[in-house]
Amino acid sequence: MVDALVLGGNGFLGSSLVDELATAGHRVTVFDRFSRDTVYTAPDVRAVQGDLGDADAVADAMAGQQVVFHFGGATTPVSSLRDPLAEVQREVATTVSMLTAAAERGVERVVFASTGGAVYGDVGPEPASEQTAPAPISPYGIGKLAVEGFLRYFRDVTGLDTIALRISNPYGPRQRADREQGLIPILLRRLAAGEPVLVYDDGSMVRDYVFAPDVARQVARLADADHAHAVYNVGSGEPHSVAEVLALAEAVAGRRAQVERRQTPRGFVARSLIDVSRFDTEFGRTATVELADGIERTWREISRERGATG
Amino acid sequence: MVDALVLGGNGFLGSSLVDELATAGHRVTVFDRFSRDTVYTAPDVRAVQGDLGDADAVADAMAGQQVVFHFGGATTPVSSLRDPLAEVQREVATTVSMLTAAAERGVERVVFASTGGAVYGDVGPEPASEQTAPAPISPYGIGKLAVEGFLRYFRDVTGLDTIALRISNPYGPRQRADREQGLIPILLRRLAAGEPVLVYDDGSMVRDYVFAPDVARQVARLADADHAHAVYNVGSGEPHSVAEVLALAEAVAGRRAQVERRQTPRGFVARSLIDVSRFDTEFGRTATVELADGIERTWREISRERGATG
Repeated sequence: MVDALVLGGNGFLGSSLVDELATAGHRVTVFDRFSRDTVYTAPDVRAVQGDLGDADAVADAMAGQQVVFHFGGATTPVSSLRDPLAEVQREVATTVSMLTAAAERGVERVVFASTGGAVYGDVGPEPASEQTAPAPISPYGIGKLAVEGFLRYFRDVTGLDTIALRISNPYGPRQRADREQGLIPILLRRLAAGEPVLVYDDGSMVRDYVFAPDVARQVARLADADHAHAVYNVGSGEPHSVAEVLALAEAVAGRRAQVERRQTPRGFVARSLIDVSRFDTEFGRTATVELADGIERTWREISRERGATG
Repeated sequence: MVDALVLGGNGFLGSSLVDELATAGHRVTVFDRFSRDTVYTAPDVRAVQGDLGDADAVADAMAGQQVVFHFGGATTPVSSLRDPLAEVQREVATTVSMLTAAAERGVERVVFASTGGAVYGDVGPEPASEQTAPAPISPYGIGKLAVEGFLRYFRDVTGLDTIALRISNPYGPRQRADREQGLIPILLRRLAAGEPVLVYDDGSMVRDYVFAPDVARQVARLADADHAHAVYNVGSGEPHSVAEVLALAEAVAGRRAQVERRQTPRGFVARSLIDVSRFDTEFGRTATVELADGIERTWREISRERGATG
């Protein structure tokens, strides 16, 4: 049992992680802006309201913690295109301050939610392993890679055990509607609302989608895992096209989408896949929920939301 | 002939670059803090005093410029160990603001002084080519690599022609005594002062040293070169050990050094070499001044300094 702090613990992935950590018997503290009502359901979670940009508040929250999970990213690949500087000032600088505080406060391990798509960039059709040279093409991916560099640096010089998780495309319940991220909930909400959905070209773009609670369950194991590499790819390891996702979404929604087709914008690669064998071999298979099932569960939550508000 | 702005144009490499650009007939503007007297010697250079952290002042200086050379780095590998956050806030954020301004103001090309040692990290005994995967281990190198990521991003999305120069270990006249960077001038100044010199283990650590005016002459060619890659290694391509450098320094100084030996600190790699064939093939051989000759020229300047002040 450890004392674990989850930065961004009321977020999409963070909140599932909080529930998994609490279920596993760890003492959990959440640091979050709480810009929406609490979505994690575990009882006995200590909540600290604050902004990750407030370095002193983050440092204070670290007192007595053994493991810090940083799942508090505020930007998205799309938002980073509008404001590359925010990526540096908000994401990278904030995380370096956090790492400095963690090393000073005697934290033992920091687990960081990096990205499995944007870090690698266009590496060709084969799945990228942790040995593949990253070549990020968006400010979002450039920022995540810089953070990974600092994680490695703190690991080398301070002995803080830092772990970067290059997570593919997590989807599922609790994914916010107000972020420009997450194909699946965006598709499902548009289907539910009868709004047209945007598909690039023939929808053949392939990605790794992974059900968020599957990721959360596995990440929670890092709270007290004996050995861990510095970097892991985390995902399903399975390729799915946008056309497949759309067909599954139409099936659970019971209606056809009005598709608006556009040319694929520059910077979108045809196939972005990761090799997840390192993580799955060491910690057990991540993906237990099939895509069709995960989409159905996500649809049920979206239908409930609409029932509640609409 | 182009209008060229040199950020950090009164610095060690920057000032030689200013002289080379002016000699080649370009219209040169220097943006610098001017924390020391002007060291470039070319006449008719427009000087703008300012801080690179002042984004508006940098943007104003870009009006009418075709090429911007960013040689204004204020941190060093050693300083970055004390303050990793400064690397993010001062170096990376400042450069992203600069790139945004350059794209908006219609600048055509930005040339950035990256690093040939710290970007690659410990890549083994073979020289690193531009295709070698960078794995920086210092905040300085991590910051430079992040800047390179943003250079690539701006190149991709704005059409700004950005070029990163991974320069090895430039040395020579005009290298400041008050920076913790530059083995050769540090050795020579200590020899001149009769102070002990610090050598790690047996002095077998190997690096690529390149005479700064050689670098400046070649970099100036990028002001109006037709085609240029996004990344170049720049150096002599020749391996020299610390022991060799010390022997050459003792020879020009005409005295033996008092050597203080220490164990090599963690993070210092045994051999750090770069493959300079891409740059030298496209623009002609960089290194024309042999190490012994360059050390002698540096010694002469240091002797003059001491004669003038001591």
